Amino acid sequence: MSLSTMKEILPQSGVGFLLRAGQKLKVLDPMGSQVADLFCLSRIYTGEWFSAARTIDYAGSLLLTTGNILYSNMSNPMAKIIEDTCGRHDLLIPPCCLKEFQTLAGNTQHHPNCDENLASSLKKYGVPANRIATSFNIFMNVSFEKGDLRIHPPASRPGDHIVLEALMDLVVALTACAHEETNGGECKPIRYEILE
Amino acid sequence: MSLSTMKEILPQSGVGFLLRAGQKLKVLDPMGSQVADLFCLSRIYTGEWFSAARTIDYAGSLLLTTGNILYSNMSNPMAKIIEDTCGRHDLLIPPCCLKEFQTLAGNTQHHPNCDENLASSLKKYGVPANRIATSFNIFMNVSFEKGDLRIHPPASRPGDHIVLEALMDLVVALTACAHEETNGGECKPIRYEILE
Repeated sequence: MSLSTMKEILPQSGVGFLLRAGQKLKVLDPMGSQVADLFCLSRIYTGEWFSAARTIDYAGSLLLTTGNILYSNMSNPMAKIIEDTCGRHDLLIPPCCLKEFQTLAGNTQHHPNCDENLASSLKKYGVPANRIATSFNIFMNVSFEKGDLRIHPPASRPGDHIVLEALMDLVVALTACAHEETNGGECKPIRYEILE
Repeated sequence: MSLSTMKEILPQSGVGFLLRAGQKLKVLDPMGSQVADLFCLSRIYTGEWFSAARTIDYAGSLLLTTGNILYSNMSNPMAKIIEDTCGRHDLLIPPCCLKEFQTLAGNTQHHPNCDENLASSLKKYGVPANRIATSFNIFMNVSFEKGDLRIHPPASRPGDHIVLEALMDLVVALTACAHEETNGGECKPIRYEILE
């Protein structure tokens, strides 16, 4: 499979799409050190959505990789990680949002952010913005020693990827993260592909 | 203030109540080693609810104590911890739920759980059950070294308490946690009081 068959998410933007049970989603970091935030909901009932809290509880771990399952707020399995060439992702930090840029970084003007990009990608599926409580932050590198959260440059190298298999019919939103500091100083694209 | 002015939440049950901005909520562990799960929403817009993810992001820490603030999914401050005699609480684990007892513990019959107790306590305020994504688990003792989650008996001794000041008008749900293993082997009561 060549990279040319993959779709590109431009830097600091997002996409929304459907993923049927059994289909696989490949998410690839083409340049390295770039985070992709993923959020998903049940296609048949959008009151059922991805829950980072249920996911870490059932995994018994803050760190997910091949074999681990993403769970919903109703404790149902949504997707399984079946391939992971990077090995470091995050489930603790919510999608970067406008208020975060204003409060933590002191921005006074609009800054692109994953929260808005996920929400706008889901709008066509009738999903309200406040459903996006947590996300699976692919390639995000957060340490938590003694409880202190620190964001480091992603460990992903060019070509690193993760493959998720849908375990129910899903509505998926995926971003190329818009936060410069989270992505080693520069926001870059993300590539993705749906495999049968 | 004597303990007799406090209300009691019976073991493995929950309560729901309103808390006005400026009012304070005292949550006390009368016997020691007992967890109380807290969830809250904005009283004027129940689409705004407590977010553990936003809370740890703004705190920069997984561990909260006096001075820390609970944030909503819309990044607004909901309540501030103004007193804490225990010092160890949890923001990682979601409220214990029926599926968790069935999946992780293999229960085949109904087991009381915080998820249902929070939801039934909020029903009279018109809050749908799926709003309860995460909770502030007062006195819950979870270690996360190298990412491995382990639940230990609560560090709280008899009389240990926490006081939260509401920063907006809130609908609050509070439980005496229903999970034996989380509470040192036995589920005990919790006491609470609203202070002006």
